[in-house]
Amino acid sequence: MTEFLQLHPDRLLPAEPAVRDVARRLYGEVAGLPIISPHGHVPPAWLAEDTPFRDPTSLLITPDHYVTRLLHSSGVDLADLGVGQGDLSEDASRAAFRIFCERWPLYRGTPMKLWFESQLVDVLGVDLVPSGDTADQLYDAVAEWIGRDSSRPRALMDEFDISFLATTDDPCDDLGHHRALVDDPSFTRRVVPTFRPDRYLEPAGASWNDDVERLADVSGGSCDTYAGWVAAMEDRRVWFRQHGAVSTDHSHRDLGTDPLDAGEAERLYGLARSGGISATDGDRLRRHMVCEMVRMAAEDGLTMTLHPAVHRNHHPGTAERFGADVGADIPVAVEVTRALAPALARHGTDPNLTLVVFTMDETVFSRELAPLAGFYPSLRIGVPWWFIDAPESIKRFRSAVTEAAGFSRTSGFIDDTRAFLSIPARHDMARRLDCGFLAGLVAEHRLTEDEARETAHYLVATQPQEVFGL
Amino acid sequence: MTEFLQLHPDRLLPAEPAVRDVARRLYGEVAGLPIISPHGHVPPAWLAEDTPFRDPTSLLITPDHYVTRLLHSSGVDLADLGVGQGDLSEDASRAAFRIFCERWPLYRGTPMKLWFESQLVDVLGVDLVPSGDTADQLYDAVAEWIGRDSSRPRALMDEFDISFLATTDDPCDDLGHHRALVDDPSFTRRVVPTFRPDRYLEPAGASWNDDVERLADVSGGSCDTYAGWVAAMEDRRVWFRQHGAVSTDHSHRDLGTDPLDAGEAERLYGLARSGGISATDGDRLRRHMVCEMVRMAAEDGLTMTLHPAVHRNHHPGTAERFGADVGADIPVAVEVTRALAPALARHGTDPNLTLVVFTMDETVFSRELAPLAGFYPSLRIGVPWWFIDAPESIKRFRSAVTEAAGFSRTSGFIDDTRAFLSIPARHDMARRLDCGFLAGLVAEHRLTEDEARETAHYLVATQPQEVFGL
Amino acid sequence: MTEFLQLHPDRLLPAEPAVRDVARRLYGEVAGLPIISPHGHVPPAWLAEDTPFRDPTSLLITPDHYVTRLLHSSGVDLADLGVGQGDLSEDASRAAFRIFCERWPLYRGTPMKLWFESQLVDVLGVDLVPSGDTADQLYDAVAEWIGRDSSRPRALMDEFDISFLATTDDPCDDLGHHRALVDDPSFTRRVVPTFRPDRYLEPAGASWNDDVERLADVSGGSCDTYAGWVAAMEDRRVWFRQHGAVSTDHSHRDLGTDPLDAGEAERLYGLARSGGISATDGDRLRRHMVCEMVRMAAEDGLTMTLHPAVHRNHHPGTAERFGADVGADIPVAVEVTRALAPALARHGTDPNLTLVVFTMDETVFSRELAPLAGFYPSLRIGVPWWFIDAPESIKRFRSAVTEAAGFSRTSGFIDDTRAFLSIPARHDMARRLDCGFLAGLVAEHRLTEDEARETAHYLVATQPQEVFGL
Repeated sequence: MTEFLQLHPDRLLPAEPAVRDVARRLYGEVAGLPIISPHGHVPPAWLAEDTPFRDPTSLLITPDHYVTRLLHSSGVDLADLGVGQGDLSEDASRAAFRIFCERWPLYRGTPMKLWFESQLVDVLGVDLVPSGDTADQLYDAVAEWIGRDSSRPRALMDEFDISFLATTDDPCDDLGHHRALVDDPSFTRRVVPTFRPDRYLEPAGASWNDDVERLADVSGGSCDTYAGWVAAMEDRRVWFRQHGAVSTDHSHRDLGTDPLDAGEAERLYGLARSGGISATDGDRLRRHMVCEMVRMAAEDGLTMTLHPAVHRNHHPGTAERFGADVGADIPVAVEVTRALAPALARHGTDPNLTLVVFTMDETVFSRELAPLAGFYPSLRIGVPWWFIDAPESIKRFRSAVTEAAGFSRTSGFIDDTRAFLSIPARHDMARRLDCGFLAGLVAEHRLTEDEARETAHYLVATQPQEVFGL
Repeated sequence: MTEFLQLHPDRLLPAEPAVRDVARRLYGEVAGLPIISPHGHVPPAWLAEDTPFRDPTSLLITPDHYVTRLLHSSGVDLADLGVGQGDLSEDASRAAFRIFCERWPLYRGTPMKLWFESQLVDVLGVDLVPSGDTADQLYDAVAEWIGRDSSRPRALMDEFDISFLATTDDPCDDLGHHRALVDDPSFTRRVVPTFRPDRYLEPAGASWNDDVERLADVSGGSCDTYAGWVAAMEDRRVWFRQHGAVSTDHSHRDLGTDPLDAGEAERLYGLARSGGISATDGDRLRRHMVCEMVRMAAEDGLTMTLHPAVHRNHHPGTAERFGADVGADIPVAVEVTRALAPALARHGTDPNLTLVVFTMDETVFSRELAPLAGFYPSLRIGVPWWFIDAPESIKRFRSAVTEAAGFSRTSGFIDDTRAFLSIPARHDMARRLDCGFLAGLVAEHRLTEDEARETAHYLVATQPQEVFGL
Repeated sequence: MTEFLQLHPDRLLPAEPAVRDVARRLYGEVAGLPIISPHGHVPPAWLAEDTPFRDPTSLLITPDHYVTRLLHSSGVDLADLGVGQGDLSEDASRAAFRIFCERWPLYRGTPMKLWFESQLVDVLGVDLVPSGDTADQLYDAVAEWIGRDSSRPRALMDEFDISFLATTDDPCDDLGHHRALVDDPSFTRRVVPTFRPDRYLEPAGASWNDDVERLADVSGGSCDTYAGWVAAMEDRRVWFRQHGAVSTDHSHRDLGTDPLDAGEAERLYGLARSGGISATDGDRLRRHMVCEMVRMAAEDGLTMTLHPAVHRNHHPGTAERFGADVGADIPVAVEVTRALAPALARHGTDPNLTLVVFTMDETVFSRELAPLAGFYPSLRIGVPWWFIDAPESIKRFRSAVTEAAGFSRTSGFIDDTRAFLSIPARHDMARRLDCGFLAGLVAEHRLTEDEARETAHYLVATQPQEVFGL
């Protein structure tokens, strides 16, 4: 007996009937609004070249570490899912897809299940429950879908009604794909780069000197001194702003922003350039550099997003075999109040500055982030990200931050994904959950339904524009 | 179209109809009980002198950092809200009030909205929704209310049925206002001081030597030695007890209570008196002094409340312009198990000791505080405080502490406020939420309704008397 | 008016009627499944010798620190509950039982109330609410029950349908009781030992040298060198495996697994054997030894459970009077991501390794444990333990770990108890709560009811067998 997938219209809304009624009405008001995606990882080449997707596995499985990591935890070798294998043969692609289908029950209770089901039904037009029995039929259906013209990235931008999409880019990138999109009159959606300078801010990192050399080349200056590094960074930020960038993104182990005095910064920079900086001093110089980036953000108005406190490549054997971003990055605790104090002392009340702090350490939501964002006009609380971009976590987030910071101090939803087909499902999930939370407040007579409706609209349509200066 | 405020009788009760029915019945049993307020910040002069309130802004906005901080986060200058401006002109007061009304949507989802609405409807008798359109009308209505005799503090003590109110006072205070209240036969409510010695326990603080000199003067002894400091502290505690005090209150960065040996304490004290103590040694001596206060509490029976782990004056620019307590204090993580171990080893099973630990670091509720309070007869878990004195946070608190500690190990509600008009709304919110939590237990057949009713009554009427020795 | 206890058939199921309906159906599928108890503290002698219980107090109160600690917090002396008093006289037993009954309201809102009520009604066949009025009647009824043949441990193993029970045992134990059970053809239930080597892994502990000497004697080798210690440990693991053990259990202050190089390990071991190791070096050597245990687990396949981060014997006065395990152990914060990195780098993808990490620090559930277990095939998330083996905590646990790790990465329920009569109530509570959580997912259309039913069955029947290699 085959089961069929059904997307219930009330999915993710609260179960209590009266609360659900309110939630359904609120959701109805925002369900169809255009998608604003101010932070994500879609390769700009896909859109510039309107590249057709290759095969079901490389579309839906291999590059999505949310998906592959749970299979790995169940004993599957990442290589068998195509990770690090280059273009897959038809047989290899089909075999990997089968593994995924056979282990579909692993995803029960996870957002990956919800996103995948939405993609199957709403995007791919397939209503089969993944299993060993349906693997081939599903594979064929997806492959058939890939072959259509309407399945290419630009057509999907329209189908998904994505009005704004930010990619993530290296400061040395020439942004040619973005230029091509701007120069192409047939493409009317807005796609912009994001300045992501992490590697240039880790002076004890193995590749740092090479990176900085490249930065000097690209910016046309010299990075022999710290002042040169600052000038090069500023130069590239101008380049990014000229290509439409609205934000910079930063991901380091901690949120530290302690500045050094000028002499000490120059001394440590010199040590780093000679390859002789210690890990500890590398961290000190990095924190100084992050504070410098806050200063630049206050000056040029690029929103600064922070995604800290991830232990990257936790399993060395996996990193050696497969490289980075394959599901072995693990969060660690983060501290905000003391770490951001130096930067906020300098720039925290500057009306031109917007800092958005994301975290997977939920303990700081009510303890530090909401109190901070409820005071500093420059600070916004990033919505749940990565492992906690998920229904229960989003409910906990709203519960934890709203009482001290209201709704006005959050970031608006970001999908943070390179899984292009999942973008509508991710935004839809956030809209449903925010409406459910608001409906709960209405049901407890803490908001009127009018206030809730205005707030739902604000969160989806206005807040991301406000936070990212669109 | 003007909207009108309505306070729904079931506000803050659980949405599920059967649970709400139980909650409504439980709440009905405790809604009308007198208010016991064993910790707060109402100035005793207001009551001793029965001072009329001045104007709507200085009554409801300027001194309330819960209110001003969210406006500040939205870009309002604190000066425009009257902060640090002395007595406001009519124009300035009206303008500040207008700013607040125009930005009223900022408070959606916060307890400030609920408290403010309750004050408007239940105390001030106004049912207008704050907005730019209603700002002047609201201002006038509040100003008219202020002018009435029935709006003066003593009349409100009766109207609110506050049977017990503790203020917060400096150890050197002569407690003249409290004496005046006791000596006044026309005033029958009980208002007592609270001994708050923080500044005398921070030997590395800038003002410490001056403070200690004043302490010596007031107590009539000498504070040249550590023994002298101890004697002076004991002397002032006697003074406070003679004036009705039932508790002392303490707020330091951490909860440390490690004692020093006598020689080391005397040596560090000498360093501090000569102005030469380091920050680190200042912390060591402070922890020793806190342990000494625990010893005194075990001896004289004053309940000792601890409100730790706040980073005060997080934004230096704001502190310079406006001083302390203007909304820029931010919580940090706290540790309890190890920090309190030395004091609890000495005094933790003393039947004469009551320690109440408050926190805004919710992580310690289930991990440390509930397990500790479920063993030590001297230890009580403070109810949610400050940023987490809010509906969702209170639900999380009861969920987190009850299973390991039951209901008997919490503190009873404290409002911790100087916003006098909000006191009934704050206590009412706590009563509603506790009844909602109890109703949830009844609905899941974990308590009978009789047990829940007894518990609701215990939490409101008995527990604060037990904890504060009333 | 006497009240009577009633166990509502829907207790602990969600209150919303439609969700409860689903939960009731799911629970109906698993309520009657046999109990698998892969980690607990029932003394094997009870079963080997089929010892009758002694008296109501020593059966239900004295040895259960969950019960005695709350009484202690209310001011009762542990001695008055029989703690540390040896066999109690009839009068002393009855007096202690009366104290408990009189203070029965202390347990409202705690799982102890639920477990106790279940034991009274379902096991002991008594429906009286404990109170001063009922104390003697209850005592007599329990005493009468104890006298029956059907109340002896072996009969209860059958009545409770416990198909598998692991005890906790010292590595030097000869496992005679376990051998006796295996050799007894009349006993058909499976009871196995668990290897618990903590004391042998704390080289700075006061008794460590004596312990290691005994280990050397029992294993027949020498422990003069670190290599000798390793060989002795391996020898005892073989012994335990030969007697049916399926797991080892470990409880240290932190989860550290940093290995030392061979020379340093030998040097520190030598220091420890001469009694001259510092606390810090003791911790370093212990972390090295724990990593060695992970290596052994990967080799011999014994599941390795970790119960870290408890501050034992928090109150020295109580430890002096009454010894260990009397309710004065308090959790502290734990860190997982960095602490386990060394061991997981070595063995984390070994298909023969199973590590189960339990915690009472709920902050690591979503931040560290779920992300780790969602990648490493060797790592399982332990279900809530000790203070958080409780309804609200279990709901928070499933909410926190499921979204990143699904249901497949948890441990299955463990009761961790020596309170033999409470075993069915504890497993039943977990089943009800897991079914309630699943029903919530069904109600929000995140799972189909078929998927939920399969998952409920998996959690109760399959997962513990998978995790403990049964």
